[in-house]
Amino acid sequence: MEFTAQQIAELINGEIEGDASQLVRDVSKIEEGRPGTLTFLANPKYEQHIYTTEASVVIVNKSFVPDKPLKPTLIKVDDAYQSLARLLQFYESSRPRKTGIEQPSFIHETVNIGDFAYIGAFAYISENCKIGKNVQIWPGVFIGEGVEIEDDTIIHTGVKIYKHCKIGAACIIHAGSVIGSDGFGFAPGPDGKFQKIPQIGNVILEDYVEIGANTTIDRATMGSTIIRGGAKLDNLVQVAHNVEIGNNTVIAAQTGIAGSTRIGSNCMIGGQVGIAGHLKIGDKTKIAAQAGIGKNVPWEGTTLMGSPAFDARQYNKSYVIFRKIPEIYKQLQEIQKKIS
Amino acid sequence: MEFTAQQIAELINGEIEGDASQLVRDVSKIEEGRPGTLTFLANPKYEQHIYTTEASVVIVNKSFVPDKPLKPTLIKVDDAYQSLARLLQFYESSRPRKTGIEQPSFIHETVNIGDFAYIGAFAYISENCKIGKNVQIWPGVFIGEGVEIEDDTIIHTGVKIYKHCKIGAACIIHAGSVIGSDGFGFAPGPDGKFQKIPQIGNVILEDYVEIGANTTIDRATMGSTIIRGGAKLDNLVQVAHNVEIGNNTVIAAQTGIAGSTRIGSNCMIGGQVGIAGHLKIGDKTKIAAQAGIGKNVPWEGTTLMGSPAFDARQYNKSYVIFRKIPEIYKQLQEIQKKIS
Amino acid sequence: MEFTAQQIAELINGEIEGDASQLVRDVSKIEEGRPGTLTFLANPKYEQHIYTTEASVVIVNKSFVPDKPLKPTLIKVDDAYQSLARLLQFYESSRPRKTGIEQPSFIHETVNIGDFAYIGAFAYISENCKIGKNVQIWPGVFIGEGVEIEDDTIIHTGVKIYKHCKIGAACIIHAGSVIGSDGFGFAPGPDGKFQKIPQIGNVILEDYVEIGANTTIDRATMGSTIIRGGAKLDNLVQVAHNVEIGNNTVIAAQTGIAGSTRIGSNCMIGGQVGIAGHLKIGDKTKIAAQAGIGKNVPWEGTTLMGSPAFDARQYNKSYVIFRKIPEIYKQLQEIQKKIS
Repeated sequence: MEFTAQQIAELINGEIEGDASQLVRDVSKIEEGRPGTLTFLANPKYEQHIYTTEASVVIVNKSFVPDKPLKPTLIKVDDAYQSLARLLQFYESSRPRKTGIEQPSFIHETVNIGDFAYIGAFAYISENCKIGKNVQIWPGVFIGEGVEIEDDTIIHTGVKIYKHCKIGAACIIHAGSVIGSDGFGFAPGPDGKFQKIPQIGNVILEDYVEIGANTTIDRATMGSTIIRGGAKLDNLVQVAHNVEIGNNTVIAAQTGIAGSTRIGSNCMIGGQVGIAGHLKIGDKTKIAAQAGIGKNVPWEGTTLMGSPAFDARQYNKSYVIFRKIPEIYKQLQEIQKKIS
Repeated sequence: MEFTAQQIAELINGEIEGDASQLVRDVSKIEEGRPGTLTFLANPKYEQHIYTTEASVVIVNKSFVPDKPLKPTLIKVDDAYQSLARLLQFYESSRPRKTGIEQPSFIHETVNIGDFAYIGAFAYISENCKIGKNVQIWPGVFIGEGVEIEDDTIIHTGVKIYKHCKIGAACIIHAGSVIGSDGFGFAPGPDGKFQKIPQIGNVILEDYVEIGANTTIDRATMGSTIIRGGAKLDNLVQVAHNVEIGNNTVIAAQTGIAGSTRIGSNCMIGGQVGIAGHLKIGDKTKIAAQAGIGKNVPWEGTTLMGSPAFDARQYNKSYVIFRKIPEIYKQLQEIQKKIS
Repeated sequence: MEFTAQQIAELINGEIEGDASQLVRDVSKIEEGRPGTLTFLANPKYEQHIYTTEASVVIVNKSFVPDKPLKPTLIKVDDAYQSLARLLQFYESSRPRKTGIEQPSFIHETVNIGDFAYIGAFAYISENCKIGKNVQIWPGVFIGEGVEIEDDTIIHTGVKIYKHCKIGAACIIHAGSVIGSDGFGFAPGPDGKFQKIPQIGNVILEDYVEIGANTTIDRATMGSTIIRGGAKLDNLVQVAHNVEIGNNTVIAAQTGIAGSTRIGSNCMIGGQVGIAGHLKIGDKTKIAAQAGIGKNVPWEGTTLMGSPAFDARQYNKSYVIFRKIPEIYKQLQEIQKKIS
């Protein structure tokens, strides 16, 4: 497919600066731009590349003012990253997509499958499942008894969903993730051995949730582990039993959340964060990568860092001194000597 | 199914306080209790909810003394959490369970399968495997050559077990876990390239071991990586080659243990802990979440925290001062000024 | 199979000390050595065991000088670990290996498969894939559209490779790993909701790359996520979109690398390390386990520790003082009192 800068500008409601008839037939990264490609500039860190890129058309923020002459045609928009999202979504939606049931697959006779669904080979769908319209279940997926999956959701290859979980509409679950495995619950006995607490709850994913690859979300002991609408979880994230994650909260890779913790909406949680169990984390909390949260976060909009974590600005101040603490120690010993 | 408080009390050897004829037909969490349900109170953090819960029957510890009047029938037991475990196990064991071999599956002609086993569709069982009685192998499981699995063990969907590993009786392995992948062993060459050390050992899981979802346990270079009886590992845990984990040791999610380390029995290891290689960790060691263990722990019963970790109480004392270290630094500079 | 010490010495170009006719028919760890087995001593930590081991033959470094008499025949080589690697590789390569296509499998008619390849049952290979000579694709593997896999590569059971990724020659990918899942890219909207940025790039693994179990490598937004030749990644590692990892870089388990970061060649990165996005890490950098890298590392050969990380020696000095900081605080308050 080939588009002019003009056609693209119309699609994303942008203003052209330069040659509107410029043709593009592929996209590229700005630092690797090739002639005939479209690229974008959103992160100021990459601004230098706009003066040297070979890309033919660049989507930029309206706020961008070049301080040198540049070759590519610019398309100026309110939010270059949003516009890129819209363009790529348009591109993706124009590509053909699979429908129908491949063989061999294993689908229990009680399963109800909506129109235009795709079920890949080696997929296993247990009794009493409901699969919505346009749902894509890729090869090798396992769906346990009584699971419900709503319209337009994509379950990538090798995902495993245990019995009785509920997956909302327009969700995406990436390869290898496990939804609804047993929570980690054991009652210690007097002999040091552990009795398993059977986990009889489930997991609920609301609409527009995206789950990364090889992430694990445990079923509740009783009731539900809940991921609210619009939340996005990256790869290798661990969500323990009875956790609740709020709307539009974003969690980066390898973060772990212990049992029964409730995380507010619109939080941004970095990678490799650990959050202890039975906590309540307020809306719009930001947590720096590798932080360890051991206490409730009762306020909204806090930024936390460190393990155990506290206010990120305070943490950074303490950490600056930590780095020069050997000198401080020396200074203190000299003062001590003088005084004695 | 419906039970009276009386019937439940008999099952768990409890004393009734209130209406013994009270009927329940489901379980609930105490903070979400509904009429006609059974719940429990074990964690004192949730005590407030017993005065407002709508649940009809609550299992409590004998030590619990209400300080206000309350509605539900109480069943008093020595250990509410243990009793809950017993009740839920009873409930689970009363449910029907699958047996037989689903098609299509791939079972080598040399495989020996015990009575009442279940082999799901798309499971693959290689030559010379022995599968015990009542074993459940869920769909899409891979079992390598010469693997032995003893009676009553459950292998959930999508688990992969490499060749020659041995799985004990009454184990549970959750979806997506990998048992017996190659240890990470490479010999550096003079040119900076690495030669692979083939890993020719195996993994042994003794009886009553539970392994969470997407956990990885590497095979030994030579000999065996061993998980002793009753040990419980959560999701996304990494166990490197030649590690040994002692009886009834419990390891929370995302913890990693480097090669050849031996962990004692009855240890409790938090989430996201890292333990270096070639160490020996004493029995009953407790390790706080996110700690990094870089040295042997020769004693029993230590509690460790921090990275690198040391005694948890000492760590907390140091960390309290770390938080106010910018003030301390200021104070020191003022003293310096006065003195000079 | 049975070998004399003499035969083994010839294979690895070693010098014999002791009985050259000594027979071995298995290998063992030095601390668990049994008569009739071959073992090795490379790590000085295990030196004590050479005086008590029951193993019949031990490969040692030429630099090793026993300080007591010992029983086994020694084979002295320049690098005992390298020699072990060579021996075990010889042993592995002598074992039979599978070829051919098992049924049921799903192979699109457009797929091109090289000679002597093995495709296991329940493997799924999509349209327009190219599979090289001697490639092993184990049961239950998923290969997306247009993927190319070069000669001699081993894809273990349950690996999932998304569309358009390229896998080099002589690579090994362990069970459950996911190559090419979507990068974690979302454009925040004014309403707090996130728009998905479709990820239209791919992943490239060059030759001799080894990837551990349940590791995840995301596809690039545009362009490629690249793992350069000879790099080795352990289990449960997370590699985000557009990352580049240099030649012969080794990364231990559970480490995570955020988007667009470029890591140099011959780096050694410990377990549970976190590396932020958009960074450049110089060649031969060493990063201690659990470190958090938040800044560029412009030099070669640095050793880093801590979170946020800095020079490892400095970190250790600061940490020593951190441990005794409560005493320092007390000392300071006493000085303050004296002065006032």
